[in-house]
Amino acid sequence: MVETSTDQKQEAKFVPQSEDRKKLLIVCSKGTLDMAFPPFMMATSAAALDWEVHLYFTFWGMDIVTNAKSLKISPLGNPSMGIPNILSIIPGMTSVATYMMKKKMKETGMPTIEHLIKMAKQAGVIFHACSPTMKLSGVTKDDLIPECDDIIGAATFIDMAGEADVTLFI
Amino acid sequence: MVETSTDQKQEAKFVPQSEDRKKLLIVCSKGTLDMAFPPFMMATSAAALDWEVHLYFTFWGMDIVTNAKSLKISPLGNPSMGIPNILSIIPGMTSVATYMMKKKMKETGMPTIEHLIKMAKQAGVIFHACSPTMKLSGVTKDDLIPECDDIIGAATFIDMAGEADVTLFI
Amino acid sequence: MVETSTDQKQEAKFVPQSEDRKKLLIVCSKGTLDMAFPPFMMATSAAALDWEVHLYFTFWGMDIVTNAKSLKISPLGNPSMGIPNILSIIPGMTSVATYMMKKKMKETGMPTIEHLIKMAKQAGVIFHACSPTMKLSGVTKDDLIPECDDIIGAATFIDMAGEADVTLFI
Repeated sequence: MVETSTDQKQEAKFVPQSEDRKKLLIVCSKGTLDMAFPPFMMATSAAALDWEVHLYFTFWGMDIVTNAKSLKISPLGNPSMGIPNILSIIPGMTSVATYMMKKKMKETGMPTIEHLIKMAKQAGVIFHACSPTMKLSGVTKDDLIPECDDIIGAATFIDMAGEADVTLFI
Repeated sequence: MVETSTDQKQEAKFVPQSEDRKKLLIVCSKGTLDMAFPPFMMATSAAALDWEVHLYFTFWGMDIVTNAKSLKISPLGNPSMGIPNILSIIPGMTSVATYMMKKKMKETGMPTIEHLIKMAKQAGVIFHACSPTMKLSGVTKDDLIPECDDIIGAATFIDMAGEADVTLFI
Repeated sequence: MVETSTDQKQEAKFVPQSEDRKKLLIVCSKGTLDMAFPPFMMATSAAALDWEVHLYFTFWGMDIVTNAKSLKISPLGNPSMGIPNILSIIPGMTSVATYMMKKKMKETGMPTIEHLIKMAKQAGVIFHACSPTMKLSGVTKDDLIPECDDIIGAATFIDMAGEADVTLFI
């Protein structure tokens, strides 16, 4: 893993792997189970279509590359789930909702986030951890899953966005 | 409505309607009343400026094309609304907040989501439903509003993003 | 400050400052303390790399340009924070979580949002307030911080997005 601190902005210039391939860059800023899926669905699909794909894990999204197994979904304040808040507040309901979503996903043949991480990696997707977030949250290099390719700051991210055909903030 | 399953990725190649017009693609992933607005405000504005506009309804955003009338806003966990959580948890408060927002919108002359759907459609905005989300949530073709033009998977979405001038994830 | 109402769409054509510089446009739609950071981290980094940067404050993001000091973070319904909902609901917990996050940020040398606003402005970042949001929420020109450069509608936003190299919705 290559660590590029924010103090070395000058050296952090992003070099795309190829000039020819389309490039997709996704910022993964959410740490809930539901919002962890879209980046991986898009990343694996784009990689299958031979795009160069980069995932930038920042803020709550850092949880995906430190503790994917523990991601949860909260029915609280999410009217789309249809569970009344007064029930959602009961201790254990977040775990129940998470269990139910995982069960539903298994039944419909959807891969888990842990599996999607491996699928994305095998397809060549590049994983970047956000250095300012690590500093703020106390996450160290050793806490990151081995799939992380490097640790980069906002300047390198901007360079990458400047080279990407599509950049999404999720 | 044309259904393109994810099993037919090869055929799902996106063909833009025109080479000349600017293209906007918006992923609608949220199912709350507040976050349903930005995609339609942008879509109708872009269409008025003669852009080709595509809306891709996925995850919680599927609620917009199945049950727009029932979209709610939750004051829980949303400090911007200024309602203390201990009040927001009271049964019925989500409905009260939703009613208040709709009333405010009506007073200031803002169209409803149902109206915006019709406005967008009349302006030529193209509606896509996400097939993996439908599989996961059990939504069928018959549950979709007639404004939906087709059902597509992630591969077709990536093709579309590759052709778009602007792609946003909301 | 230049006010461009949505009734003057024709005149609102966006003129980029320069043809040569890369352009970044960020929609700031969230009013929580955590989600107020990413736009400013990216904006200041891009400006340091000589990009032309535009921030468009809309929906809950309007709070950033009216009352940045009061932005809060809610642990409710955010499993990433690891605080059980049954504790988060206790009156005052939103303030406690906000205090804790601000303390953590100070300890790790991260600037406050108020400071980031000044840093962004000094670096040439351009601030736009969303006119439909102001109408809906009753915010007037006088409520906006002086850093706001103008008030624009969705049509001008679309023009800007059409000229930008990267457009993000946060």
